[in-house]
Amino acid sequence: MLDMFFSPKSLAVIGASKDETKVGHIALRNIVKGGFKGKIYPINPKESEILGLKCYPSVKNVRAEIDLGVVVVPAKFVLDVVKECAEKKLKGLIIISAGFKETGKDGADVEKEMGRIAREAGMRIIGPNCLGLMDTKSKLNASFVGELPPKGNVAFMSQSGALCSAVLDWSYSAHVGFSKFISVGNKVDIADPDLLNALEEDPETEVVMMYAEDILSERRFLQAAESLAKKKPLIALKSGCSPSGMKAISSHTGSLAGDDVAYTLAFKQTGGLRCKTIEHLFIMANAFSKQPVIQGKRVAIVTNAGGPGVMTTDAIEERGLELAKLSEETQAALKSFLPAAANTHNPVDVLGDALPDRYGFAIEKVIADPNVDALIVILTPQAMTDIAGTARLVGEKTKGCGKPVLCCWMGDRDVRPAFEILSSYDLPNFPYPEHAVYALQKMVSFNKIHHEPVKNWIIPKDRSAHRHQESAAIIRQAQSEGRTSLNEFEARSIVKAYGVPVARHRMARTVDEAVHAAEMIGFPVALKIVSPDVLHKFDVGGVKISIKDEAGVRAGYEGILSSIREKVPHARIDGILVDSMVKGQRREIILGMKRNPQFGPMLMFGLGGIFVEVLKDVAFRLVPLTRDYALNMIEEIKSFKILQGVRGELPYDINSIADALIGLSDLVIDFPEIHELDVNPFMVRPEGWGAAGVDVKMLIE
Amino acid sequence: MLDMFFSPKSLAVIGASKDETKVGHIALRNIVKGGFKGKIYPINPKESEILGLKCYPSVKNVRAEIDLGVVVVPAKFVLDVVKECAEKKLKGLIIISAGFKETGKDGADVEKEMGRIAREAGMRIIGPNCLGLMDTKSKLNASFVGELPPKGNVAFMSQSGALCSAVLDWSYSAHVGFSKFISVGNKVDIADPDLLNALEEDPETEVVMMYAEDILSERRFLQAAESLAKKKPLIALKSGCSPSGMKAISSHTGSLAGDDVAYTLAFKQTGGLRCKTIEHLFIMANAFSKQPVIQGKRVAIVTNAGGPGVMTTDAIEERGLELAKLSEETQAALKSFLPAAANTHNPVDVLGDALPDRYGFAIEKVIADPNVDALIVILTPQAMTDIAGTARLVGEKTKGCGKPVLCCWMGDRDVRPAFEILSSYDLPNFPYPEHAVYALQKMVSFNKIHHEPVKNWIIPKDRSAHRHQESAAIIRQAQSEGRTSLNEFEARSIVKAYGVPVARHRMARTVDEAVHAAEMIGFPVALKIVSPDVLHKFDVGGVKISIKDEAGVRAGYEGILSSIREKVPHARIDGILVDSMVKGQRREIILGMKRNPQFGPMLMFGLGGIFVEVLKDVAFRLVPLTRDYALNMIEEIKSFKILQGVRGELPYDINSIADALIGLSDLVIDFPEIHELDVNPFMVRPEGWGAAGVDVKMLIE
Repeated sequence: MLDMFFSPKSLAVIGASKDETKVGHIALRNIVKGGFKGKIYPINPKESEILGLKCYPSVKNVRAEIDLGVVVVPAKFVLDVVKECAEKKLKGLIIISAGFKETGKDGADVEKEMGRIAREAGMRIIGPNCLGLMDTKSKLNASFVGELPPKGNVAFMSQSGALCSAVLDWSYSAHVGFSKFISVGNKVDIADPDLLNALEEDPETEVVMMYAEDILSERRFLQAAESLAKKKPLIALKSGCSPSGMKAISSHTGSLAGDDVAYTLAFKQTGGLRCKTIEHLFIMANAFSKQPVIQGKRVAIVTNAGGPGVMTTDAIEERGLELAKLSEETQAALKSFLPAAANTHNPVDVLGDALPDRYGFAIEKVIADPNVDALIVILTPQAMTDIAGTARLVGEKTKGCGKPVLCCWMGDRDVRPAFEILSSYDLPNFPYPEHAVYALQKMVSFNKIHHEPVKNWIIPKDRSAHRHQESAAIIRQAQSEGRTSLNEFEARSIVKAYGVPVARHRMARTVDEAVHAAEMIGFPVALKIVSPDVLHKFDVGGVKISIKDEAGVRAGYEGILSSIREKVPHARIDGILVDSMVKGQRREIILGMKRNPQFGPMLMFGLGGIFVEVLKDVAFRLVPLTRDYALNMIEEIKSFKILQGVRGELPYDINSIADALIGLSDLVIDFPEIHELDVNPFMVRPEGWGAAGVDVKMLIE
Repeated sequence: MLDMFFSPKSLAVIGASKDETKVGHIALRNIVKGGFKGKIYPINPKESEILGLKCYPSVKNVRAEIDLGVVVVPAKFVLDVVKECAEKKLKGLIIISAGFKETGKDGADVEKEMGRIAREAGMRIIGPNCLGLMDTKSKLNASFVGELPPKGNVAFMSQSGALCSAVLDWSYSAHVGFSKFISVGNKVDIADPDLLNALEEDPETEVVMMYAEDILSERRFLQAAESLAKKKPLIALKSGCSPSGMKAISSHTGSLAGDDVAYTLAFKQTGGLRCKTIEHLFIMANAFSKQPVIQGKRVAIVTNAGGPGVMTTDAIEERGLELAKLSEETQAALKSFLPAAANTHNPVDVLGDALPDRYGFAIEKVIADPNVDALIVILTPQAMTDIAGTARLVGEKTKGCGKPVLCCWMGDRDVRPAFEILSSYDLPNFPYPEHAVYALQKMVSFNKIHHEPVKNWIIPKDRSAHRHQESAAIIRQAQSEGRTSLNEFEARSIVKAYGVPVARHRMARTVDEAVHAAEMIGFPVALKIVSPDVLHKFDVGGVKISIKDEAGVRAGYEGILSSIREKVPHARIDGILVDSMVKGQRREIILGMKRNPQFGPMLMFGLGGIFVEVLKDVAFRLVPLTRDYALNMIEEIKSFKILQGVRGELPYDINSIADALIGLSDLVIDFPEIHELDVNPFMVRPEGWGAAGVDVKMLIE
């Protein structure tokens, strides 16, 4: 896939230049110097030859087929170039030229037009406004960055061109090799999902590293990330976490569901390993590209210094890994060889005067121990330490051991000679042991992801079912009246159709209907005004609770009506909702949904009241929700223990919460027009007693 | 202070050796090679000359005075050496030799003995089992580590010798200079507080960096850290955070108050800047040693790349700093000079093709803007970037500007030439912008600490007051009976004496007394068994609540007694406590204390019930507590908003909680024998209505 970009048989540099300060020159020179083996056609109407290559006025003047065009002409000429390339039937264009969407509306229009032309011609585009791409296998450096990185198994796709430069510069000294470098630019055509699909298939790529500022094409991204992340580590840095200007917010879910929450979910739920800093991106790339993935979580440490051993132990516990317990045999072997003062428990301390022999012996025994899943080797440069020799021995002793081995040669000037040696054995080296532990934690995550089934993110809407038709009728009616919210009765009917239990209720339009409904539901009941013009029912006397008998219903009914007439004189009144009251042991839950512009519906779950209002202790998930995901979401909140029953309470009916969440997931998939939703409170009762939504708020478009 | 260690006029190396592989040789050679200007006496009975210096059989054979002894003899000879040195009246000893406390009880005994001898002779000791020390001013390298670090203003004291080596090695390439390096070893005499006091006074030291695994001498440490941290940044790494085997725990406070909580408080309350990794230690040392401290928290960014600018912005918001808003003038000036596509808002983007002139102009304008408190300069190595030239210009343009300027030349191989240039201008350089933001956050903390009054950590016990005498009598009585816990009535009396309000109550020993007490207190009341043999009153029917009248009291009284007789037949019964019941709006609070082995009493505060049991949402403080500290502690919990009144509740009486905390602080200072304490629940009522402790548990030694 996308071979026309990564290994074209021929390419044209459109806008090639003789002027060495111009991007048009640098790009051509980089292609030539990089060692690309295919045919290269410089295109420039004013030149006949550049860098010893024959130059053509236009791609149309080239007789042979051209696979790829690298476009470096000024913005105003790009559209013509795209047209010519389309006519010449190029398969792909890398548009390095800038001056489009990023400059405002005019630029955006031109950009759209180039996308349209390419789409019609079946020609793909990377960019515009990008740095280009590099492929170390085909030795294609179609970029205006200096030189190809060392060859290796990491692919890097980045929305920041400058970050590409910085990562490249880092790669030389970190000894991390790359398969591909792709600067994605404005993504007029080729976007993140296309690249993820291509990299998933690419045999040269074993680790995918991405930097993104925004991700468009939402569901396709989820699908592509899910599919890739199950096979190869997808390590991602998404910047721009600070709260962006959100639209006016009218529900609890809305106020808590910021854009960054959605990105976090998008990576977490698809299995992408998201990090927050470039440093962490590098740490993961270094470890994943060189070492096998950890198969358990028991970590052993071999060190020549106690202090760093303690710090590593701290980090291991903090990151949810385990300090390996060495077997009796391993410990006996270590005792037989190491000096008496050495620590033969984990962390194994070979002491400050250790020469390579002690390290070698300890490492050999420890890595062979079946209780050990990974090894961190720490070296501090002390008086007698053989910095390079130890590095070499670690390499020899751990070669092909099948478990991840991470090194930490602490310091800088004196330990530097070991870096290249460690790297020659594919041993990643970190300046601080905490980095090694971080990498192992991410390996544990990947190992877990790797064994999970692949989910399908592109879900068909279920428009045939009865529940859909019933709900659709209610929504169409509201839309036809120009409303953007549903009333309580309507909203309850819809969620109920999707399997979310709600309290028994009836709409009453006369006081007698209310009395009859109350008797059928059973006392006590509550009465609630239903009106499109009343938003805060409580504030205007629109609610009466704990009504115990017929007289109460009659008084309550009239009371509500007269209060509304006084406080909201022009309110249209749809009727009065007669509601049952949930009694006995119960907890207020909040269920909600907010639609995210990138990734679609996000469901929210939490305990109601102060837990959501003060503690903001809620969990989010992108839909669709499987049963496992729903349960996992419920368990995620800090106050989950409360639902298990504390202080003498029975455990709550968690299954009924999971069912309701799954119902809401189906509902919001079927109806993209629902853009915000709260079931608050959703009263959950003890196990076996179910639950009931008492107040449902639904906003539509 | 401690001049005999840092700038002795003369010193002896006791155990000096001709054998180049021996520590006794390396230590002497390091002193000679380091350039120490004082007199040096090698001591070794078997040699007459080492490294061209006359060798003596014993310090006693040296006629002249000797200030300092560096001891490198095997462990078994150390005690004799210490005696000889004491007789020769040396002022200080650095005992590098190992084989004492760290090897077990015998070693510990020898170590104690050397401490005793030195103390009697008025001779101070650093070590044993240490790496030695270095002083770059007196050029004293009394260690067995390679060479003196670059001279500078950072002092490093470390409990891990190996970490000294790693930090030294790092210092050369990070261009961070040191005044002193001290490996503290087993701390038989000179401990952390002594060194903190000395470094506080040391004019060569402007930043103190410490690594500790344990801190003894508790309150002296707090006092010394407090005093130093108000003047100079005290940056500290404390390892060993993982839960250590704690003693059996019998209170809520006890179960939440781990050792690491105490260390966290010790640094936080004294103003030490604690970090969790060596990396963060280095970041702080680099920034604090080179740049002035930030005076506000508004940060500006100048960058040649958008992506890193966004990431820096994320980090700034995450760490509680502010993105500076540039003045109109600054923005206008930037617009006049920078290309149209440049971003003249903060982060200022001078664009990928920026040469030093653009950087220079932007930096000059931005740093002069009164809305800017600090500047981060980011450079990514792009096609046209002048890596070294830009570094030089940043140095020139920011020299003496009085605001912190931190640099981030991203990448490694290509940007490396800039490192030395930046350092020559005292500009710290970080590989990632998040590091620079971290450093600024810590500067903001230091700036705040710097302006706070110095607290006194050594507090006299207030044994004369009435409240003390009354409480002491109760405690003595319990101790004389061999009890380790007080009964409810005793515990309440004690906390009440210290100003902690408790619910109105009386002890009744007959049913008539109980009836009388209930009538005086006012119904409803609760009855509670008081017995040293009943720990869980509720479980054995020892509590009756909501008793509304005399008949209820009589029935309840008998009911409790018969239930106890049945379930705990041999229980001694002190009586039955008649308790008032707190009615109306109220919240359960938990107040508690646990005594920490290092730092003494730690108070705990939180909301009771699920907030402490499930959410563990509590705050801790070391005593003594000022009123400000008590309020600040109350505000620290996540659920604090609840106390301000939510969902229609009145705000709670926070002052009465603060008063109670201060009372407990006084109490636990006066009585070191109280080692655990819970007031749970402490019922707080709305503002003006006070509070009342309902259940008080107190454990004594």
